Amino acid sequence: MDNLYYNRIEAMRAFMRENQLDIVIIAGSDPHASEYPAPRWKQVEWLSGFTGEAGDLVITFDHAGLWTDTRYFIQANRQLEGSGIVLHKMRVPDQVPIPQWIASLGIDEPRIAIDGLCHTMENIRSLREAVPDAEIFPVPDLLDALWEDRPAIPTSPIITLGEDLVGESRESKLSWLRKWLVMQEADAILLSSLDEIAWLLNVRGADIEYNPLVISCFLLTLEDAQWFVRKDAFVAIDPDTQDTFEELRADGVHVRDYSDISFSLQSLKEVGVDVLCLDPATTSVYLRQSIDEGERIPLVLEKTSPVPLRKAVKNPVEIAGMREAHLEDGLVMERFLYWLSTRGGQVNEWEASEYLHSLRAQVSGFRGESFETISAYGASAAQPHYSTPREGSALIEPRGLYLVDSGGQYLFGTTDITRTIPMGPCSALECEDYTLALRGHIDLSMAIFPRGTAGCQIDALAREPLWQARRNFGHGTGHGVGFFLCDREGPQELRQNFNSVPLQPGMILSAEPGIYREGMHGVRHENLVLVRSVGDNEFGSWLGFEPLTLCHYDTSCLEISLLTQAERDWLNTYNARVYRELSPRLPAEIASWLREKTLPV
Amino acid sequence: MDNLYYNRIEAMRAFMRENQLDIVIIAGSDPHASEYPAPRWKQVEWLSGFTGEAGDLVITFDHAGLWTDTRYFIQANRQLEGSGIVLHKMRVPDQVPIPQWIASLGIDEPRIAIDGLCHTMENIRSLREAVPDAEIFPVPDLLDALWEDRPAIPTSPIITLGEDLVGESRESKLSWLRKWLVMQEADAILLSSLDEIAWLLNVRGADIEYNPLVISCFLLTLEDAQWFVRKDAFVAIDPDTQDTFEELRADGVHVRDYSDISFSLQSLKEVGVDVLCLDPATTSVYLRQSIDEGERIPLVLEKTSPVPLRKAVKNPVEIAGMREAHLEDGLVMERFLYWLSTRGGQVNEWEASEYLHSLRAQVSGFRGESFETISAYGASAAQPHYSTPREGSALIEPRGLYLVDSGGQYLFGTTDITRTIPMGPCSALECEDYTLALRGHIDLSMAIFPRGTAGCQIDALAREPLWQARRNFGHGTGHGVGFFLCDREGPQELRQNFNSVPLQPGMILSAEPGIYREGMHGVRHENLVLVRSVGDNEFGSWLGFEPLTLCHYDTSCLEISLLTQAERDWLNTYNARVYRELSPRLPAEIASWLREKTLPV
Repeated sequence: MDNLYYNRIEAMRAFMRENQLDIVIIAGSDPHASEYPAPRWKQVEWLSGFTGEAGDLVITFDHAGLWTDTRYFIQANRQLEGSGIVLHKMRVPDQVPIPQWIASLGIDEPRIAIDGLCHTMENIRSLREAVPDAEIFPVPDLLDALWEDRPAIPTSPIITLGEDLVGESRESKLSWLRKWLVMQEADAILLSSLDEIAWLLNVRGADIEYNPLVISCFLLTLEDAQWFVRKDAFVAIDPDTQDTFEELRADGVHVRDYSDISFSLQSLKEVGVDVLCLDPATTSVYLRQSIDEGERIPLVLEKTSPVPLRKAVKNPVEIAGMREAHLEDGLVMERFLYWLSTRGGQVNEWEASEYLHSLRAQVSGFRGESFETISAYGASAAQPHYSTPREGSALIEPRGLYLVDSGGQYLFGTTDITRTIPMGPCSALECEDYTLALRGHIDLSMAIFPRGTAGCQIDALAREPLWQARRNFGHGTGHGVGFFLCDREGPQELRQNFNSVPLQPGMILSAEPGIYREGMHGVRHENLVLVRSVGDNEFGSWLGFEPLTLCHYDTSCLEISLLTQAERDWLNTYNARVYRELSPRLPAEIASWLREKTLPV
Repeated sequence: MDNLYYNRIEAMRAFMRENQLDIVIIAGSDPHASEYPAPRWKQVEWLSGFTGEAGDLVITFDHAGLWTDTRYFIQANRQLEGSGIVLHKMRVPDQVPIPQWIASLGIDEPRIAIDGLCHTMENIRSLREAVPDAEIFPVPDLLDALWEDRPAIPTSPIITLGEDLVGESRESKLSWLRKWLVMQEADAILLSSLDEIAWLLNVRGADIEYNPLVISCFLLTLEDAQWFVRKDAFVAIDPDTQDTFEELRADGVHVRDYSDISFSLQSLKEVGVDVLCLDPATTSVYLRQSIDEGERIPLVLEKTSPVPLRKAVKNPVEIAGMREAHLEDGLVMERFLYWLSTRGGQVNEWEASEYLHSLRAQVSGFRGESFETISAYGASAAQPHYSTPREGSALIEPRGLYLVDSGGQYLFGTTDITRTIPMGPCSALECEDYTLALRGHIDLSMAIFPRGTAGCQIDALAREPLWQARRNFGHGTGHGVGFFLCDREGPQELRQNFNSVPLQPGMILSAEPGIYREGMHGVRHENLVLVRSVGDNEFGSWLGFEPLTLCHYDTSCLEISLLTQAERDWLNTYNARVYRELSPRLPAEIASWLREKTLPV
């Protein structure tokens, strides 16, 4: 076998033999439980060739398996070819998660190595529960021995965002978090989740592709604040970062080097910390162990961090910024769709994606895409998370469906939009799928629900029009979206999972039902929506969604007869609003094209 | 104060003083965690006068409180008047359950008495968690000292049901349960939930109003089966019960006296039981303590009983019986509604309820109502669980809405139906509420959903039409229904609560959305529906509902313009089916009236 990944797995097995290990688990995450890791922590990709955003690898002497979910089945099957790695499907009814799979091997007292940096306390806990007799060895940087040219920890410039952009000063946020600590009867909290830290300190970086984050840890006590971040004397610090550090110091935040965190956790008692809060869902095994390596160990309270929920509820300044971002992004999208409407048969998926990027790059305040653009024609779109290849991507023909899922990071907000475009004549099945998925999107967008309702309690509204036709989609209906932060954030979501976090006014989510037919086509319709109050009465306090995304839905391949009158009304009102808000800022030629595209149906 | 209940509470306080108790909790249940207790265990009613089906009482020296849910708020406010007892609302956003309320009192090491017979292990556990420093005294029959003429344990005749009626022999059920025990690595299970025992042994009684149950406990080991039930030599045993005991003995079930259970639990090891399963959600503190009072104590495994789920999935014979029951019950209902249509202004709620009973009583195999008939005109119907008074019930006028919620126990099945009847001219609000609640009922009835879906994931389908108009109802949308057993059974349900039990083919549930306006009117539309498979394809395995209930929905006060075409089609198809299936067995006069009532809209 001369497959690169097969050979790397074999090298790992040699390492396992040397160290008398039965099993190695490689997490697809980083030391901060990030969804997208920086290149240094793309360990799963280095070992397996799989580039999907969610995947963990398990290696034994006679098996190598990749665990990933429905979004990546097609991609994983292709990328794993020849590596000998087997796909284990998650988010399917008969899924067998890693801990249960290892338990099913029936190895007596298995010796399991994990990367203690990249596994969270919760990961390890579920492994211990499923395999109680396992000996687990958390090895920091487990792959270092094999991965010769492993990338370093990134050090992109760090900027700060003023109150004019984010609506709340870091003093105010820190003071809120300290009040929370007092309520928990604790005197410190350790944060290692990067978007929590960025939100709390009003800082942004570019350490992770598409995510304006700074690799760092943060320790807040009642009197002190310590930010563990690139400060190493041997690394040159750029002027932006220098300014940021000075601004933070002026606000009482001590800036320390990233590598100091472990030592600091060993001497918490010495600085007066008796009770430390941390979140086992995001804290790495390595950080947890560091605490226990101290001579005097504080009481550790495991608590869900309060930061994600507060961050998810956007303040009025953030909401205004998001509206502005969606206006700019809508103009970009309509320019793109107009251009595309004249290019059928002349451009491929990659070129379309590049053109879309060039339009976004002209917007002042643009800081890059919020995720890798999915530019997918025909059968490509059957992969919900298709990765458009630079070389040899499919030609966009003047027929059938083209799907584009993209978004921008702007200093004043984050966007995420999917449109499915009929490029010319479509099959009856394409039209039906297009219409049914749009009905799901519309029904969800129209939903009214009482305060206290969680996403899983209304997710079915987006699916029932598809379910009626015995169709469905295998991904969630919607995820939280950050303010110039991660395109995906919690704690709320719109999906079948029993997530009990209620939707609250100010939360922003995607609403993106779809249908995927392998080898044929894919459909997805996605707006970002803002949860807002729509009145109180004797029956309760009522919430609804307001679309933030401004870009018309194409009606040319709609099966109008499948829509209810209410759904038609919603669609016509939405398209009319898009025309009204965007046309004054579009060139006459595009505005007049948009008028045609938004005529009522 | 000469209020009867005030005086009883004061007597309880005297008892508390004597015994140096700070708090007494009286559960609304019985020693078998039943929803409806036999008169002997209507302790909450005896102390407070409250007759609702769900309510617990807490007495301190300066407070007496009744905890009940949305269904009973109006009734509780009326019945508690003058007693000094305060209503504590449950199933509302800011609810404070009993354990948390007691914790909030801040009493140091409070001494709390409970009735050990009528509190489950789970009840006590949540109390201990909320009030860790409490001293809890489980006193069996705590009220005995005060309640002089307390009713005895009931001893109604016990019958058996043959395989022709229930579709599975008790040997087969016992053998299934023993296989389950082996899988748990246990050698015995204690059952005290009455409907589990009735299902398992194919026995029925009439110990509890509306519930064909037998007060008893059951202990199954791998080799033996012991049924603890009325066998006391001092009580005369009727011939039916005698036959039942003989049939069970022939099947290897030892029949022992009810009072022997405690002693048997103290000597489990002596009969070879090393590992005993029990369900903490239904096992009383008293039974659990009995085990620990033995000299040698087996290992106790706390497990959710597997019986409710298997019982909930009806077999083909049970389904056929339920269809037959609904045909008979539908004929009764149409006769009743025809009669009622000619009686506006001439009968009151009680008389209507009595007439409905007289019709059901003519059906061969009828064994009584499945719950207390709710016969409610106008404002009475604003109470979802209105109790129709024998004396002084409201006249049913030839205008506005009359609601009747009733059901029958038949040897071959259980029914539960609600119809809301326009008695003549209705207000615009009545028509709108009637229509919106019916839309909710229809949308739920039409739902298609993939296998694995739980009730809480589709409950919103029944509510969204109401939510759109900012209206809602405060009770669940649907509950499981037994086969000639309890009108309410688990484990599945249709409501907002995060109950993750998936709906499965063969399950039967009620579908009963409504709207209630205090002082004005109430609307509820209820069919029983059967979960059934509606096909498999590449997107999944699909389930839907089939209405079992056969009784037309009145269209005379419908706001047709509020219905979608699909909803109108469903309604017309359903009403046509009702006419087709019932009319051949109705007198010509009623059949022709029904034809008019079921004309398409």
